[in-house]
Amino acid sequence: MAGAGRFFEDFVVGDVIRHATPRTVTVGDLALNQALYGNRFVVQSSDAFARRIGYPASPVDDLVTFHVVFGKTVPDVSLNAFANLGYADGRFLRAVYPGDTLVSTSEVIGVRPTSKGDAGVVWVRTRGVRSDGAPVLEYVRWVLVRVQGGRPVPDAVVPELPSAVDPSQLGAACPRIQPSAWDDAEAGGARRFDDYAVGEKIDHVDGMTVEEAEHQLATRLWQNTARVHFDGYAQKSSKIGRRLVYGGHVISLARGLTFNGLENAFHIAGINAGRHVAPIFAGDTLYAWSEIVDKQALPGRDDVGALRVRITGLKDFSAADFPRLGEDGKDHPAVVLDLDLWLLVPR
Amino acid sequence: MAGAGRFFEDFVVGDVIRHATPRTVTVGDLALNQALYGNRFVVQSSDAFARRIGYPASPVDDLVTFHVVFGKTVPDVSLNAFANLGYADGRFLRAVYPGDTLVSTSEVIGVRPTSKGDAGVVWVRTRGVRSDGAPVLEYVRWVLVRVQGGRPVPDAVVPELPSAVDPSQLGAACPRIQPSAWDDAEAGGARRFDDYAVGEKIDHVDGMTVEEAEHQLATRLWQNTARVHFDGYAQKSSKIGRRLVYGGHVISLARGLTFNGLENAFHIAGINAGRHVAPIFAGDTLYAWSEIVDKQALPGRDDVGALRVRITGLKDFSAADFPRLGEDGKDHPAVVLDLDLWLLVPR
Amino acid sequence: MAGAGRFFEDFVVGDVIRHATPRTVTVGDLALNQALYGNRFVVQSSDAFARRIGYPASPVDDLVTFHVVFGKTVPDVSLNAFANLGYADGRFLRAVYPGDTLVSTSEVIGVRPTSKGDAGVVWVRTRGVRSDGAPVLEYVRWVLVRVQGGRPVPDAVVPELPSAVDPSQLGAACPRIQPSAWDDAEAGGARRFDDYAVGEKIDHVDGMTVEEAEHQLATRLWQNTARVHFDGYAQKSSKIGRRLVYGGHVISLARGLTFNGLENAFHIAGINAGRHVAPIFAGDTLYAWSEIVDKQALPGRDDVGALRVRITGLKDFSAADFPRLGEDGKDHPAVVLDLDLWLLVPR
Repeated sequence: MAGAGRFFEDFVVGDVIRHATPRTVTVGDLALNQALYGNRFVVQSSDAFARRIGYPASPVDDLVTFHVVFGKTVPDVSLNAFANLGYADGRFLRAVYPGDTLVSTSEVIGVRPTSKGDAGVVWVRTRGVRSDGAPVLEYVRWVLVRVQGGRPVPDAVVPELPSAVDPSQLGAACPRIQPSAWDDAEAGGARRFDDYAVGEKIDHVDGMTVEEAEHQLATRLWQNTARVHFDGYAQKSSKIGRRLVYGGHVISLARGLTFNGLENAFHIAGINAGRHVAPIFAGDTLYAWSEIVDKQALPGRDDVGALRVRITGLKDFSAADFPRLGEDGKDHPAVVLDLDLWLLVPR
Repeated sequence: MAGAGRFFEDFVVGDVIRHATPRTVTVGDLALNQALYGNRFVVQSSDAFARRIGYPASPVDDLVTFHVVFGKTVPDVSLNAFANLGYADGRFLRAVYPGDTLVSTSEVIGVRPTSKGDAGVVWVRTRGVRSDGAPVLEYVRWVLVRVQGGRPVPDAVVPELPSAVDPSQLGAACPRIQPSAWDDAEAGGARRFDDYAVGEKIDHVDGMTVEEAEHQLATRLWQNTARVHFDGYAQKSSKIGRRLVYGGHVISLARGLTFNGLENAFHIAGINAGRHVAPIFAGDTLYAWSEIVDKQALPGRDDVGALRVRITGLKDFSAADFPRLGEDGKDHPAVVLDLDLWLLVPR
Repeated sequence: MAGAGRFFEDFVVGDVIRHATPRTVTVGDLALNQALYGNRFVVQSSDAFARRIGYPASPVDDLVTFHVVFGKTVPDVSLNAFANLGYADGRFLRAVYPGDTLVSTSEVIGVRPTSKGDAGVVWVRTRGVRSDGAPVLEYVRWVLVRVQGGRPVPDAVVPELPSAVDPSQLGAACPRIQPSAWDDAEAGGARRFDDYAVGEKIDHVDGMTVEEAEHQLATRLWQNTARVHFDGYAQKSSKIGRRLVYGGHVISLARGLTFNGLENAFHIAGINAGRHVAPIFAGDTLYAWSEIVDKQALPGRDDVGALRVRITGLKDFSAADFPRLGEDGKDHPAVVLDLDLWLLVPR
């Protein structure tokens, strides 16, 4: 049997895994990304706009970089995972352009067996690098991985992770831009950094219904190989009974929805935290709302500022009343995604 | 709440709306367009063929230009529309190539409140322009827009529109071609301009079944944001009960079907009129037939001539008997599209 | 009625049919191919990897070349076919790169009426050629074509076909590579030519569920016009009652699945034989296993060797026990594809 993937016992803190299948990103990928998520952030949509503000060309959507880097890690990290538990300390380090080839490595930075003993949490720090060695993205994720059994299980090593990326680390993937060349009419919104207030909540209004063909196309595009997304026959006899939608698909859908109200938040600079609170299935409709939880200037930069935005994704439930917690004080039953990002906005 | 869109009272004749999100068209978009509509018109398919007859490269499918220009208008014009009533005076003004960035503006040219008072017709003249200012497409459309209420409603101003585009305006987006270099075997048909007769009817034979994933991919690709196409959950409680397919998706499917019988009609030069007679839904199968209703030489051009073609789209009903009117003299119940185009054909 | 296609009586041995619609292959097509099939073979995924081993850039996936060349033949060869019976003598003759324009011709090399008299087998040798005349692919396929009736039916001419492509013909589309520059970690597997043994069987483990939208997108992308793939309304009243999935879609899905276990088998050099044993429908899940049935050095080449691999595709049935024959000694009821390829592997 080929491609069985790693079990909990196979992860050793300090090991660095080089992942297979570097991938050259092209305008073909960007068109599919557009068709899958309906993005309207102008810097990624218009070469002419991007050039006018100071980019050499439209950069690749940050989440395309994320998905390409992430996809490669699946066969090595999460093929035998029960769940993708969280993300932290995500930083975009360099703008990516069509033609760039990306490759990933993951360093095992923590392991913790569960009390039940049939699984363990594994933390990896994944680094996405251009083929010439220039880093483009770094993030930590942790997953619950099956114990294969019959082998010793490692002692717990739990990494310390920042609760948020420090603002000094946010500008690396964004060249200095000309805010005066930023055309609000073309961008679709007039609100700049100073126009957002901490505590503000935004209902993104639109809803997006997910189809099996769509999430499968996306997940294969990103070379993510987790079987649960494609194998409907095997999934029928699983506990869940059907195919699961790749969590990253939900993140990109939510990002697309946030355009309404965050039109000028053109760049994801950091991923502070992220949780797939509940799975989403074909036929479900995703809604989203955002809360501005912090805002910070970037040291040495007067062109852009950073909004810390907590995005809540909901399924089959309106975002109009900003639901996040249920009556029991736990996650509201409709919440599927809880994502905490730093977004750059022109000043 | 973000992105609520304009209501009928917000449209003032003479206003020019600059639409958001200029977009750079790429070969990625063209591949998706191919996958969505199955086009076989050779000029858009083969760079080598296009060069041989006089283009610098394969131009972008005219309907890709249309969709990109159209999509941008939706958040400003038709987000609160009940219906897309019609198109007229559409003229393609310049060939578009991969790498061109397109942006749209719409001028409000007419308004007319309905007698019921809950809605009004709005006419806009939309102009698609390359980022260097060169115009690529112009057309008029009119939509039925919701009245928000509580504000004065404007008096009626109804624009005069031509019943058809004048043939002198049809050649702008088509460089002078070499008909002698046109290889009928590669093009897939031997019929030239002189071989079509006014009054001729053509059954395009093929049928195309629409899937939710397909029209959603298309509609997001063109950055069309009308909620009715994506939000299956909200649509469940609408009068129609389900997602609506973007009308432009039906136009492109019909255009693809017309290849059988109109193989050499490589360029849409003008849109005389268009009506979405009835909605189409996922699971419906589209058929089409065409009638040649006029043919005209282009002033000063001996390389191409223009066929005026009325395309009738039908759902779940064969086009073999050329149905257009029902027994009551109104639209045949299977008709979904009535589209009147000028198509260029080599001489 | 346009585009009725050829009937059995229309095929004359020795005739060469020039097929319509040359097509320029782009990175857009490659992105869609990636999204549809989830390929991970590194040479086609990473420009940087391809250059390091000796290609000028990532070549186009061999099956993209196959589909583009094949699609053009459908309107002329198989529009009235009951079944696609088999493939043989397939040879890839030159690497294809984005920007190349491909065109196809088919020579009729055999015909044989069936005893029933309502159909006949037609053999064609299809040649795919770049727009500058350089051959890129050649293969034979045979189909069962409807007899129209009322015309004389030709006498049988049955071509002789090789049972396998001779190894001396396998290297043409693969430039000399540097096996020492082949990075196994990036490629995702350490097994080279010498590590595979004749008789070895590999379960490819993964399963892929097919959706209507997916196979329709693929089939239109390749400009394959067979009605049975798109026209759900007409198919409802056919014997099968629903849309059929294009056989080539199944071949590409199977090729994608084979990555697990054949990670370094980066190039399809020859198609010895192929049979679509049974149809596949939306909702079915494809599994695959492979048997190494031969291995051969290439004359004059010490950089790559050829594995002859027989790939068995199964629907809704695990490949773990390598099923091929049923209890009756005929094809196992779950088998849908029986494909015999030469694959190149670095030494």
